Amino acid sequence: MRNIKLTIAYDGPDFSGWQKQLNAPTIQGELEKVLSTITNAPVTLNGAGRTDAGVHALGMVANFKSNSSISLSRLHAGANSMLPAAIRILSIEQAHPDFHARFTSLSKSYSYTVATGAIQSPIGRLYAVHVAQFLSLSAMRQCLKIITGTHDFASFEASGSRDKTIRTGRGSVRSLYSAILTESGPDRLQFQFTGDGFLRHMVRNIVGTILEVGKEKRTVTEFITILDAKDRSKACATAPAHGLFLEEINYPQQGDISL
Amino acid sequence: MRNIKLTIAYDGPDFSGWQKQLNAPTIQGELEKVLSTITNAPVTLNGAGRTDAGVHALGMVANFKSNSSISLSRLHAGANSMLPAAIRILSIEQAHPDFHARFTSLSKSYSYTVATGAIQSPIGRLYAVHVAQFLSLSAMRQCLKIITGTHDFASFEASGSRDKTIRTGRGSVRSLYSAILTESGPDRLQFQFTGDGFLRHMVRNIVGTILEVGKEKRTVTEFITILDAKDRSKACATAPAHGLFLEEINYPQQGDISL
Repeated sequence: MRNIKLTIAYDGPDFSGWQKQLNAPTIQGELEKVLSTITNAPVTLNGAGRTDAGVHALGMVANFKSNSSISLSRLHAGANSMLPAAIRILSIEQAHPDFHARFTSLSKSYSYTVATGAIQSPIGRLYAVHVAQFLSLSAMRQCLKIITGTHDFASFEASGSRDKTIRTGRGSVRSLYSAILTESGPDRLQFQFTGDGFLRHMVRNIVGTILEVGKEKRTVTEFITILDAKDRSKACATAPAHGLFLEEINYPQQGDISL
Repeated sequence: MRNIKLTIAYDGPDFSGWQKQLNAPTIQGELEKVLSTITNAPVTLNGAGRTDAGVHALGMVANFKSNSSISLSRLHAGANSMLPAAIRILSIEQAHPDFHARFTSLSKSYSYTVATGAIQSPIGRLYAVHVAQFLSLSAMRQCLKIITGTHDFASFEASGSRDKTIRTGRGSVRSLYSAILTESGPDRLQFQFTGDGFLRHMVRNIVGTILEVGKEKRTVTEFITILDAKDRSKACATAPAHGLFLEEINYPQQGDISL
C-alpha cells in the first residue's frame, strides 16, 4: 500500500472551505471524489490543515493510502483533467509510510494581502482586501514583533469553534516563528506568518486587529492588552477571507523524519 | 457645459463587453446608468474603443458632456460607490471642450498574458491563458517583428464584424508601433501591442496564430503567407478573451491637441 502525498493549489471563492461537507462543494470533497474514481476505491485525505470558505492556497498538502497500482504520473494528469479549474494538484509523490500531512508538518506559512491606495483596481480584487485609509506601517510592524514567538493566542481564536480533534495539550498556545509585513508592490502590502500551527481564524483575527492599529483606531499598547486578555471579545473584527493564502506546509527532509 | 474624461479599469468576465446592450450588463451600460443618476441627466459615453465580452481593462478612457454642477471629486466618489466592484473609475478630469475619447486618441496599448508550465496555478487563471506545450520564443518574436509597422491586417479581423462607424478610408490597414513578447514572470509570457488602432479581435487573432507558430504547428513563412493573404479564413483560431487587457489609451498632451 502506497502513501501518496499531494501538493495542491486552489482558488477559494468557489468552495465552502477545505473540509468535506455533505451538501456543499469543498476542496477535500472534490479531490476525494476524483481520486476515488481514478483509483477505483474510496479515498480519505488527511489534509495538513483546514482552510475556511473563500481562503486560497498555493501549497496545501494532503496524503492518502492507496492499493491502486496506477502510476503517479497518470494519477496526476488524470486527476487534474477531472478537477474543476479552481483546484490543481501541483505535485504528487510517494511518501514515507508514516508520513501524515498534518502530524508530520513542522510549520505552516500564510500570507494576507492588502490593497492600499484610494481606489482598488478591479483586477486582483478577489485576492486582496482593500483599505483606503492611511496605514501606519511602523505601528503594524510593532504589533507583529509583539506576537512573534510563543504566546497564548486565545484572543485571536474564532469564538465557539474550538476544534478538539487537533487540540493537543497546548490549548491555544502557538509559536509564530516569523510575522512580517512587506510592501509587495505599488499600493500593496503583504503580511507573512510562519508558525507551528494556527488556531481557527487566527491569521484573519490578527490581521483584522493589526489593521485597526495601522489605521490608528487602536494603539500598540491596546494591542498588547488584547493579546494578554486571552479573550476573543477583546479583539477586533475578523479580516475577510479572500485576502488570505495558505502559502506552504513545511516538513522535515524525507530522510530526517523521526516518526 | 463641461467635457468630462474618465479613465476606467474593469474585470471582464462579469460583462458582455464594453458596448451598451439592451438586455445584457455591459461596462458602458453600468457607467451610463450610474453617471445619469448622479448628474440627474441622461449620459452618453464616448468610449475610446470597444472591448469584447470577457476582456479586461486597466486604462479604458471615455468622455461625456454634462451640464451638472457637481464637483468632479464628488462625482468620482459617488460613481465608484454605486458601480459594481468589477468596474472602477480610476480618475476623472475636465477635458478640452473638443476632446473625444476615440477621435483624439493617438494610440492604444493592449497586453495578452500566457501562463506556461505543465500546470496552471488556479490563482490568476482568470487573467492568463494556459499553454502547456513548448513555445518557441524566437519564432514568435520573428512574427511580431513581421507585423510591426503598417499593414493590411484583414487576415486578423473578425469575420463578418466590420464596424462601419469607426471605419475611415484606411480599410483594414493599421499601424503597429510596437509588438513585443516578454517573459513577465516565472511560467508567464506577455505580448504587448501598441498601435494607432485595432480591428475587431485583431489582438486575439494575432496571438492565436502566433501561438501556433510558437508550438511549431505553423512556420514563420506560413505566418507571412497568412498576413499577406488578407483573408481571415487563412489565420488560426482566436485566442480566448480572458488573457487580453486593454492597457492604456494615449493622447496628446492637453495643450498639444490640434482639433
